Amino acid sequence: MIRKINLSSENQNEFVNKFLRNRSEEDDSVSMVVENILKEVEENKDKAVFEYAKKFDGVTLNSSNVKVTKDEIDEAYKLVDKSLLDVIRKAKVNIENFQKKQVEESWYTEEKNGVILGQIVRPLEIAGVYVPGGTAVYPSSVLMNIIPAKVAGVERIIMVTPPKKDGINPAVVVAANEAGVDEIYKIGGAYAIAALAYGTETIPKVDKIVGPGNIYVATAKKLVFGVCDIDAIAGPSEIMIIADKTANADYIAADLLSQAEHDILASAILVTDSEELAGAVVSEIEVQMNNLSRKSIAEKAIEDLGMIVMVDSIDEAVGLANLFAPEHLELAVEKPEEILNCIKNAGAIFMGQYSPEPLGDYFAGPNHVLPTGGTARFFSALGVNDFIKKTSIISYTKEALDDVKDDVITFANAEGLTAHANAVKIRFLEENKEK
Amino acid sequence: MIRKINLSSENQNEFVNKFLRNRSEEDDSVSMVVENILKEVEENKDKAVFEYAKKFDGVTLNSSNVKVTKDEIDEAYKLVDKSLLDVIRKAKVNIENFQKKQVEESWYTEEKNGVILGQIVRPLEIAGVYVPGGTAVYPSSVLMNIIPAKVAGVERIIMVTPPKKDGINPAVVVAANEAGVDEIYKIGGAYAIAALAYGTETIPKVDKIVGPGNIYVATAKKLVFGVCDIDAIAGPSEIMIIADKTANADYIAADLLSQAEHDILASAILVTDSEELAGAVVSEIEVQMNNLSRKSIAEKAIEDLGMIVMVDSIDEAVGLANLFAPEHLELAVEKPEEILNCIKNAGAIFMGQYSPEPLGDYFAGPNHVLPTGGTARFFSALGVNDFIKKTSIISYTKEALDDVKDDVITFANAEGLTAHANAVKIRFLEENKEK
Repeated sequence: MIRKINLSSENQNEFVNKFLRNRSEEDDSVSMVVENILKEVEENKDKAVFEYAKKFDGVTLNSSNVKVTKDEIDEAYKLVDKSLLDVIRKAKVNIENFQKKQVEESWYTEEKNGVILGQIVRPLEIAGVYVPGGTAVYPSSVLMNIIPAKVAGVERIIMVTPPKKDGINPAVVVAANEAGVDEIYKIGGAYAIAALAYGTETIPKVDKIVGPGNIYVATAKKLVFGVCDIDAIAGPSEIMIIADKTANADYIAADLLSQAEHDILASAILVTDSEELAGAVVSEIEVQMNNLSRKSIAEKAIEDLGMIVMVDSIDEAVGLANLFAPEHLELAVEKPEEILNCIKNAGAIFMGQYSPEPLGDYFAGPNHVLPTGGTARFFSALGVNDFIKKTSIISYTKEALDDVKDDVITFANAEGLTAHANAVKIRFLEENKEK
Repeated sequence: MIRKINLSSENQNEFVNKFLRNRSEEDDSVSMVVENILKEVEENKDKAVFEYAKKFDGVTLNSSNVKVTKDEIDEAYKLVDKSLLDVIRKAKVNIENFQKKQVEESWYTEEKNGVILGQIVRPLEIAGVYVPGGTAVYPSSVLMNIIPAKVAGVERIIMVTPPKKDGINPAVVVAANEAGVDEIYKIGGAYAIAALAYGTETIPKVDKIVGPGNIYVATAKKLVFGVCDIDAIAGPSEIMIIADKTANADYIAADLLSQAEHDILASAILVTDSEELAGAVVSEIEVQMNNLSRKSIAEKAIEDLGMIVMVDSIDEAVGLANLFAPEHLELAVEKPEEILNCIKNAGAIFMGQYSPEPLGDYFAGPNHVLPTGGTARFFSALGVNDFIKKTSIISYTKEALDDVKDDVITFANAEGLTAHANAVKIRFLEENKEK
């Protein structure tokens, strides 16, 4: 049963901090194991990778069978339902369109004296996408991770996913191919992250690794940060729903359960000022729970991390949402547009009663890779700007430098950096003129 | 003396990887010390902060003297040279203008059936800027770190810098005030990073920490990543100059030395196809070195990490630059604009002989906080987009959801997530219609 709590405004801050902090435990023993794997792969490359594949995944790999072939891709298409392929293609268009709105262009400005300043925006050259190989398989995540890289213009997009005796899930292969992946390798876990970060004889060294994974994968990503870039470390999924008395309890129960079924660590929170709605949601959750294929997971998540928080007003609910900074925030209130501007921290906002969260997971277009665990305070959805880099351009003429040389020299000398000052001075020494 | 090497194209990749890797050593003993400090400050807040200030900085602090007062700021203005203040103000305008070009706007699109999608761009609420308190004091870095946050619209910009018995450097206080800092606290080292990440009774919890620091500061930033956001970890400074026979050896020697004087770990590399130029630069470095106030630092940096790399052509030099991905890249060639488009990886590019690197450090406008150690492959200069977050908006109408409901349900079922499917289905059940 979902618990109901009252939060006075005084202890909200502390409550939220504790709630978020308790969900982000780390494990030192994992770090040690992962550090070893990283070192081994950096030193012994393919040899280490194939040994780990045997050890952890029970599959014998070598440089000629680690990469998914054209034939394997064709085979995957035969195994995937036509209806799913159709939906993947439609979803792809929506996801692509939303990403295209985010493309940044290089720019230049011309200043006086012939000065040109600017910023060149370029795609990363090689990106790596990790796709987990557990029991739950999410082709939607494949689309959401690959498409932004593709729209950004990344030349080589490499996907990795753990090898399995019965082959890779065909829906994952098809989704990757539809999204525009360039190469797929059958490697997984921390050793796959190491291979992507350092490169091996077979696996290309990448500029950035994205995609969710278990604690070993997440730890490996954290440890290789700096060798390459990584996306934000994804925590368990979350939904918060702000609802007033006009909301539909059945819909709210269904939406809370849709997050709860992800993971026993998922959190589903309703914040409302309506006792009547709260009561209806409590019982409706119990009813709907019984029909779910993942009932045991949803039940545990609701029990451990589900909550209905009673507040005095919708304004207070908004304040609480800003403290939680939820991954997904539904505004199930009469006029969602009236409170939208007060929401400062949320990964994605779903407006009104016909924008259920799963619509965003699969289809609407905005990325479902979103900041979790309160990090929407400072992180954003995965997007094109995660797959670009910028280079500043400074082009001065002699006249322009002459104009500002005294300023630069004054600043450099004030910082005690005389060689900096000298680099400007020397360009205006008599003997260097008209050289 | 700077060493001269030849690199055949076969071993360039390996050479560059080794060079970059050798410069990025980490220290496990530092991690343990820093982890303890973080834990102490998270638990005991102000009490721990003031104890560390006494222990590490020898200064007695309490909640009423830790914050720099209006009087202290006024006093700093009296101590700073009028000419420096003038230059700070001019530089500020240039830095601001360059940042303003990078501001991103929120956007919305209207699709068919009344669907609205969009992305809200918001500034972070609170940002922390770390300013080191060592012997070298850099007001220019204060400007470069604070101004992008200010232009992004961050409400509260908090600066921290180690307490000193004789007070904070006045140029740093003045630069911070001119840049628009909101509060300055006299705390430093790993304990200051902990205070910003977790918050204390006196120090506000921030959303992001930026700014350079020693190994303790850098390690602390890495460890709090996720509790708040951080900027890229800054390594020692680097310059690479690509020069052809038209380049001026005196200028090149001066520019190489301007980086070398920063730090004994700074790297200054010339890549050229002209033996004559190389020879002239070797001797000119020796001559100019003798006039530098920081000669001993520059000499050691040139000796250990300086290099002149001889190549067969400027094309080859460009290839090498892309492998190094240098923080600063000067194009001292006859027609820099002809090779600009081939440079894929560099933090900032300085075009032609009147764009010396120190011009960018102080004055031109582009940020001098740049990716180091080869990370320009995937990182960019500090900018407005480091101080914003984005929230996706999804707003569907009943008609619009009705139109796509079967697609969403198909996708959810294919992933085995029946509660996801149910969240859509339930909105179209007969008994819920017109509720």
